[in-house]
Amino acid sequence: MKIGILGGGQLGRMLIQEALKYDDEFYTLDPAADAPCHNISHFTQGSFNDYETVLNFGKDKDVVTIEIEHVNADALAELENQGIKVVPNAQIIKTIQQKILQKQFYKAHDIPSPDFEIMDGSSDEIKMPLPFVQKMNTGGYDGKGVQVIRTNEDMKNLWIQDSVLEKLVDIDKELSVIVAKNENGETQIFPVTEMVADPKLNLLDFNICPVFLSDEIEDQIDSITEKFLNAVNSPGLFAIELFLDKEGKVWVNETAPRLHNSGHQSQEGNANSQFEQMYRVVKNLPLADTDAVIYSGMLNLVGAEGFSGKVIYEGMEEVLKLPETYIHLYGKTETKPGRKMGHINVLAESREELMEKLIQVKAMVRVIA
Amino acid sequence: MKIGILGGGQLGRMLIQEALKYDDEFYTLDPAADAPCHNISHFTQGSFNDYETVLNFGKDKDVVTIEIEHVNADALAELENQGIKVVPNAQIIKTIQQKILQKQFYKAHDIPSPDFEIMDGSSDEIKMPLPFVQKMNTGGYDGKGVQVIRTNEDMKNLWIQDSVLEKLVDIDKELSVIVAKNENGETQIFPVTEMVADPKLNLLDFNICPVFLSDEIEDQIDSITEKFLNAVNSPGLFAIELFLDKEGKVWVNETAPRLHNSGHQSQEGNANSQFEQMYRVVKNLPLADTDAVIYSGMLNLVGAEGFSGKVIYEGMEEVLKLPETYIHLYGKTETKPGRKMGHINVLAESREELMEKLIQVKAMVRVIA
Repeated sequence: MKIGILGGGQLGRMLIQEALKYDDEFYTLDPAADAPCHNISHFTQGSFNDYETVLNFGKDKDVVTIEIEHVNADALAELENQGIKVVPNAQIIKTIQQKILQKQFYKAHDIPSPDFEIMDGSSDEIKMPLPFVQKMNTGGYDGKGVQVIRTNEDMKNLWIQDSVLEKLVDIDKELSVIVAKNENGETQIFPVTEMVADPKLNLLDFNICPVFLSDEIEDQIDSITEKFLNAVNSPGLFAIELFLDKEGKVWVNETAPRLHNSGHQSQEGNANSQFEQMYRVVKNLPLADTDAVIYSGMLNLVGAEGFSGKVIYEGMEEVLKLPETYIHLYGKTETKPGRKMGHINVLAESREELMEKLIQVKAMVRVIA
Repeated sequence: MKIGILGGGQLGRMLIQEALKYDDEFYTLDPAADAPCHNISHFTQGSFNDYETVLNFGKDKDVVTIEIEHVNADALAELENQGIKVVPNAQIIKTIQQKILQKQFYKAHDIPSPDFEIMDGSSDEIKMPLPFVQKMNTGGYDGKGVQVIRTNEDMKNLWIQDSVLEKLVDIDKELSVIVAKNENGETQIFPVTEMVADPKLNLLDFNICPVFLSDEIEDQIDSITEKFLNAVNSPGLFAIELFLDKEGKVWVNETAPRLHNSGHQSQEGNANSQFEQMYRVVKNLPLADTDAVIYSGMLNLVGAEGFSGKVIYEGMEEVLKLPETYIHLYGKTETKPGRKMGHINVLAESREELMEKLIQVKAMVRVIA
């Protein structure tokens, strides 16, 4: 089958890597000539934001999917009109792309998400009490397009743009749950993972699984995933990012309509990975079992501050000596500060052992140039 | 690093698939334009048996390796002269390519292997008592080039060619052990696996791991792997195929200087797979841990009798519904009777459960056209 992917980054690369177990032809579209997928797929250099480019790319494929949500959804809708299968569908991509529509989607389906107010390009009539989070309606990614407004002083930094102003949650834990639904309506849910963010870069740092939560909290998460999977009128794999607040209440922060950084530890930690699951969703195959087989955790390898240029992974040979430790690099030749260059998965027999190993590994490696 | 592989078949494909976790450029050489590696590596169509072709292919690589042993070893020796690293080295490939040299290697290093006699193109002075196995000196592969001579009647089928005549072992079990050695001299050994051959096709059918053997038998195998790893003057990953006879004695049948069908279940059954290990050998990296994490087994997907042409995998969707079951196809478009098209790995909590699952899966699938 001819499978087209908008985006040729690491998520696409790991999807294709996993899917080499099967017999498909992968096509990728990315503006960067040296995108991680360029040498393992039929590669087209071009913009996935451009209507004509996406239309041309998709028109001869059996199915078109995404590995980034900032794509031209109108072109995907037109491809659907022309009879091309698009997974997830253009409508849900459009909904998730726009923070305003995304928040309205949660509200409409009674999915708990922090209170919000829509700001449509003017700050004149803001009612949301301080502190709040401003999320730009479009274009946010990896922490960009999001800011916290805490004080009246901060108000002068407000972006005068279409955006969502959201009540600031007093976060105890950041959790994530990856859910999948195929065209037949079959669903599968990965075990909840816990994210530990690096406050400086706002990129995921550690991600661990499984997480032990009270029955009461698990029930809330079950209710959220059930409502989401019922509401979402599309096949797809979705990462639902959750906040657990200090009063034990679970809120949906946001959803990604694609493979997600918070699912990387599934490569060695679960019976099947998010990449295997995504492949099955795209082909409308029976979904894979997602059991966590052991404690697993992931740390991102991001470009160190002060280094730009041809990448060097310092300390990697020492990491290769560690048992139950798996390096995943993304085939990117150039590093820059904060760029996601790879990740390392670690397995362990207990949460304590896992955290120790992750901290040990983190201290061993540095992504420099 | 530029890694060249002679051969572009499934072993190369699965090696490259695994190594996509790292940042290397793979180059493959194969006579078939649609070889399994053709679309995931820099592909050269050509003969790995041709001196000039191999020399040209290898001359600008950082390291050259093999995924099939029937290659032009003289060209590899010349590449070594030119300063290109070849893994495993040309000398050990040459030794293993020729059954006569291979048998002499075992004898010289006191590695138990069935008694033999060299037949050099004439049957006039054969002393080996019946029954015996005739193995052609060169060109044998997947059961080709090997025949059993049981009776005086059979003697008329004897190939009048350079060959080894080997005492027929009264086989209780066929075992395999995959060993690895890097350039630094570090070694690692995979757990022993047991092969269950299909008598008709002489292609591996089930392969299971771990195998429970008496201490006495394990000691024999340990002694064999130790002697082999000491004797082999080359980095490499080697599959040592063993016979356990009915009196409890272990014999080396033959050795493959490469990735091997008997190690496929390591993809999900071991802490690291033979493909990960081969990658580390090729790059002289610290070797990976090889622990069996669970019971694992593998069954080959071979083209069914009576079907040739564009492949159809019958029953595969049902197999995808089974937990702890992993399909690996090789990207081959055309099937023919007996052609290896893929394999399925199965995990289980016990040997009994494993055998049940393997038999169940085998009954579900058929490779037709």
